[in-house]
Amino acid sequence: MEQALATNIIGAMTNDLDSRLEFTIALARRAGELGMTFFREIDKLTIESKGHQDLVSNGDREVELFVRASLAKEYPQDGIVGEEHAPVKGTSGYTWVIDPIDGTANFVRGIPAWAVVIACVKDNTTVVGVVHEPSSGETFYARRGGGAFVNGRPLKASGAASISEGSIGVGFNNRTNARQIVPLVASIVDDGGVFFRNASGALMLAYVAAGRLIGYSEEHMNAWDCLAAMLMIEEAGGIVEPFNRGNVIENGTIAIAGGKGVFGKIRDMSASAYGLSAEGAVGSG
Amino acid sequence: MEQALATNIIGAMTNDLDSRLEFTIALARRAGELGMTFFREIDKLTIESKGHQDLVSNGDREVELFVRASLAKEYPQDGIVGEEHAPVKGTSGYTWVIDPIDGTANFVRGIPAWAVVIACVKDNTTVVGVVHEPSSGETFYARRGGGAFVNGRPLKASGAASISEGSIGVGFNNRTNARQIVPLVASIVDDGGVFFRNASGALMLAYVAAGRLIGYSEEHMNAWDCLAAMLMIEEAGGIVEPFNRGNVIENGTIAIAGGKGVFGKIRDMSASAYGLSAEGAVGSG
Repeated sequence: MEQALATNIIGAMTNDLDSRLEFTIALARRAGELGMTFFREIDKLTIESKGHQDLVSNGDREVELFVRASLAKEYPQDGIVGEEHAPVKGTSGYTWVIDPIDGTANFVRGIPAWAVVIACVKDNTTVVGVVHEPSSGETFYARRGGGAFVNGRPLKASGAASISEGSIGVGFNNRTNARQIVPLVASIVDDGGVFFRNASGALMLAYVAAGRLIGYSEEHMNAWDCLAAMLMIEEAGGIVEPFNRGNVIENGTIAIAGGKGVFGKIRDMSASAYGLSAEGAVGSG
Repeated sequence: MEQALATNIIGAMTNDLDSRLEFTIALARRAGELGMTFFREIDKLTIESKGHQDLVSNGDREVELFVRASLAKEYPQDGIVGEEHAPVKGTSGYTWVIDPIDGTANFVRGIPAWAVVIACVKDNTTVVGVVHEPSSGETFYARRGGGAFVNGRPLKASGAASISEGSIGVGFNNRTNARQIVPLVASIVDDGGVFFRNASGALMLAYVAAGRLIGYSEEHMNAWDCLAAMLMIEEAGGIVEPFNRGNVIENGTIAIAGGKGVFGKIRDMSASAYGLSAEGAVGSG
């Protein structure tokens, strides 16, 4: 009886997460269409600089408002945290973590690599993640325990056994010492590898889930840039450096990820470049 | 009378180049569609490694054969030089220089940043250049003296006055000392700049023409990777480091380009990283 009840509860939760995932995919695609209306007329964008490499446009703001309004209507009890507007506290235990346009520097210059990113977090665990790239029409998505996919096709992290078998995404920003990207790039090249940087961290992490990049490293990412795709990487059989799930929404985290055969090496190179301890960046996840 | 004759000759040449441009745009788009049929089923691609970072797939070969057959039918007197098959000598003075898929490392992994590249060279001068990216549907093109465009919109190189105002594309490959990318990346970051590397040199150069990147630097590029977009940069008001137009098809060239306000700085950083003389890489173009 209790067993059946527990199964029913788990079944109900899974159904709820599946419907949240379905809702999130549709929402990210609609948000992407809205973003495209700004992207097609970038000459008319209003761009502000929040600092070096930290741009925001009215496109970012409008897309975030649209996503927030849609979430508030469908899930009024949930919390919402986004890049461009103030956080909303919820009562349901669910928090939506959104980046309306990841890769704003691309977006405002006309480079098509930008994405709408939406994650749903329950009890400090990411349960749903979606990264939608309007220019290519690709939607990457995952539900915890349910696998990861791009446009319906399963994602699988790289099976590379050495750094020389593929490309490693790298990211840097004004929140950390940008100079630390240099020894990382040097390590990758010295090891016979190749670095890749298309300036959308969420897309590059989604590419790690897809095995298109063998790994990724960035000293600090905000939760709205990384949580969605990190879930995909875990669901796709890759490894993500443990992070403090209890404060990642407030503080962000280091972001290191890769296929099983190369993660350790990418972590070692990153630790050396960023000056981390050998054991772990922030303790257990 | 002679004046009128000269005008007529120039007019006829321009008409010929316009029709060559129109033909090339249509051809690149058809070639892109063919490439997409392979890209959508990359699990079935046959991939060979010609060396580190130097991959070729049956997709590359098939697209090049299609482009060659189309050119040979329309312009049977012209020469053809492409990345994957032996060169064809012509008698007309025109030579087509083609890369069926620039960004093969992306193509074979499923990353959408790859392009069909076709240039037409007359008397050592690039007269027509097209870079078509199937995933985004963008076709960049230029005719010498006729301006540069993407999907009908004019291209304009960046007006940035300093390195910190935008991103610089970087490339490296197995034909040169890959390690030399490290001091270049270091210079960019130390100067408050941002590097970008989406692994398609032709696309990144086209982005320079479009002002999406403020500049580009790579120690060595093959003619089929760079001639088409270099014409676009010149037509869009940017600067390209002079190169030996007499042997670029055989030997390739250094590739440095940028908006007028930052080219000198990018050239200085590149010269220092690659160990060039201060005057010029290969003499006058």
